[in-house]
Amino acid sequence: MDFGTASQRLTRTDAAGPGRDGVLRTLRTGPFRFETGGSLPFLDVGYETWGRLDADASNAVLLHHALTGDTHVARGEGAEPGWWDGFVGPGRTIDTDRFFVVAANMVGGCYGTTGPSSPDPDGRPWGSRFPFTTVRDSVRAEARLADALGIDRWHTVLGGSLGGARALEWAAEYPDRVARCVVVAATAASSAEQIAFARIQTEAIRLDPDFAGGDYYAAGPGPVAGLGLARRLAHITYRSEPELDVRFGRSPQGSELPLGSATFDRGRYQVESYLDHQASKLVGRFDANSYLALTEALMSHDVGRGRGGVRSALGRLAGVRFMVAAVDSDRLYWPEQSERLARSLPGRTAVRYITSPIGHDGFLTDIGQLDAELRDGFLD
Amino acid sequence: MDFGTASQRLTRTDAAGPGRDGVLRTLRTGPFRFETGGSLPFLDVGYETWGRLDADASNAVLLHHALTGDTHVARGEGAEPGWWDGFVGPGRTIDTDRFFVVAANMVGGCYGTTGPSSPDPDGRPWGSRFPFTTVRDSVRAEARLADALGIDRWHTVLGGSLGGARALEWAAEYPDRVARCVVVAATAASSAEQIAFARIQTEAIRLDPDFAGGDYYAAGPGPVAGLGLARRLAHITYRSEPELDVRFGRSPQGSELPLGSATFDRGRYQVESYLDHQASKLVGRFDANSYLALTEALMSHDVGRGRGGVRSALGRLAGVRFMVAAVDSDRLYWPEQSERLARSLPGRTAVRYITSPIGHDGFLTDIGQLDAELRDGFLD
Repeated sequence: MDFGTASQRLTRTDAAGPGRDGVLRTLRTGPFRFETGGSLPFLDVGYETWGRLDADASNAVLLHHALTGDTHVARGEGAEPGWWDGFVGPGRTIDTDRFFVVAANMVGGCYGTTGPSSPDPDGRPWGSRFPFTTVRDSVRAEARLADALGIDRWHTVLGGSLGGARALEWAAEYPDRVARCVVVAATAASSAEQIAFARIQTEAIRLDPDFAGGDYYAAGPGPVAGLGLARRLAHITYRSEPELDVRFGRSPQGSELPLGSATFDRGRYQVESYLDHQASKLVGRFDANSYLALTEALMSHDVGRGRGGVRSALGRLAGVRFMVAAVDSDRLYWPEQSERLARSLPGRTAVRYITSPIGHDGFLTDIGQLDAELRDGFLD
Repeated sequence: MDFGTASQRLTRTDAAGPGRDGVLRTLRTGPFRFETGGSLPFLDVGYETWGRLDADASNAVLLHHALTGDTHVARGEGAEPGWWDGFVGPGRTIDTDRFFVVAANMVGGCYGTTGPSSPDPDGRPWGSRFPFTTVRDSVRAEARLADALGIDRWHTVLGGSLGGARALEWAAEYPDRVARCVVVAATAASSAEQIAFARIQTEAIRLDPDFAGGDYYAAGPGPVAGLGLARRLAHITYRSEPELDVRFGRSPQGSELPLGSATFDRGRYQVESYLDHQASKLVGRFDANSYLALTEALMSHDVGRGRGGVRSALGRLAGVRFMVAAVDSDRLYWPEQSERLARSLPGRTAVRYITSPIGHDGFLTDIGQLDAELRDGFLD
């Protein structure tokens, strides 16, 4: 099964030695016990690095991808651009001439780390047998990666959206191993609304007759219609109402006729075609079971779980320096939720705002707005 | 096929004489040509009335239901309460002691008016052969009903959400037949975002293997999973983020365990159970094809279509007195859209606000807040 560029990178990777920038490598762990009780005989943790770890291992930065992201944050040896290229690289905000940058794929993903599409010891995809996984599981797997890389304490952990949840969970799980934590467009715990939108998406995948209970790998391409539907909805929530209105309004797609007639099926509005395009891009590169697993990990996100609640969990992180940022037009991870997160942290942490009309995705497109704040003071 | 209470009312109705309050009756039209080209040999238009039409037919009020609403706006002879009981009835804002109140089911619906589940002349449900229908089709069908009832000009047409679109379309299609028009939580034309959310819902129904291309009536209950999924999403958009957060937060449903384990499927969060409940209520009372047809009618809503655009269409309605109202926390029919609608109308029309934390559904639960404005001046 091929989930696009990352899998291809994985193939290239197997031949790559350590320390090559932006090339996917894999760490194989021993037996891994999941937070909620499952276990696997081993995990492969897919990761990429950029730059060099300094002698006292004090310059390591961990970057966290969002729901369907991958480890290719920045350009490396190859030509393929990273998804945060303007933000991470030589001379960039996260300066790979200065920092040793690491990005790992989430547990349950399909970009190098073991997930439902990965083979079990007999070569059969785990499929429906893949354990329920949480953000905390990914953080614990990354801690093993940090051990293997010789990183005792991160200079900075940073992420947006589900990646922001992962950064925060890192600070809460290993406060002594995190000096700075940057949480962008994320919450301390997934809200009722985030859970609700997520549930529609998981349900759409399960409704697809090709889902086959999660064991679809031998039969064909799997539940691509359901995954596409999930992505369409997700993409609406990633964008703001005015963004969709200004870009598409009620325009028809090309010469299509969105009003049906007695003899023809109706054509599409531009906004429908746009969502179709988003869906088709995703289904070509992402595994539906991974989408399910990571979406349920998102739903499970609660930094206060098993730690006496959010305030208690965050209240004891006085040793970590935080930056909390939000996109002002975000209507999936509402700015008020970032404000609440900031208020729960020790000390006075003012929320930094990314100003963008487009909504949640501003954490990807406009992260550069945090450049000055990060360089002048926060990262030292 | 039985879609619940309305169908039962239809049965009772056949025996009911004219003029009985809150009892479903049916007007059968002649051949009906749809806006976009389809046609049917006849339409049944299901409707209810309350009160008495005065001698000069000057006291008739037409109320419009929303997407899955029905004609039973207010209590009548029977015990069944109406969905706007506090707003419509003797001595209420829409005072049935003073007004002759009419409510008709939309074309394509399943509450008395011909829709995809209605039998063709051979007794077979129209199913996939039902023509594409628009809000304008419903208005034109209602004009035939007005003719039959002897109503040349409505004292007031009023509706919320898709019902508000219908009220506005009435004024635009028959400006001489509408004295007053009240548009609550609606837009002049469905926006890109409304189209996008609607598309997810229609796609969910079509993804259900039991949809069978729309001709599912003989085979069983039809695409109830897809319809339920559509309703879950719709319901999220009907409510505000804070409403969901305050009511449900991250609480688990009863003793269910939302975090999965190695041996059990995961349980639900309360908010998931709540959405499941909304879905299960709807699928017991609504036809999936009607949901599709009316959702596509919603997508098609554009009062400016064929009239030189929204501003031109509304600009010539100086003879109609308008009230535009919005729910301040609405995030499906954003207040800004009501402001834009009001600015496009002749004269100065200030938007009235329903203050409610719950979101779009405030047009149902808190319509009473318009009581004083409607009674003191607007309705005379």
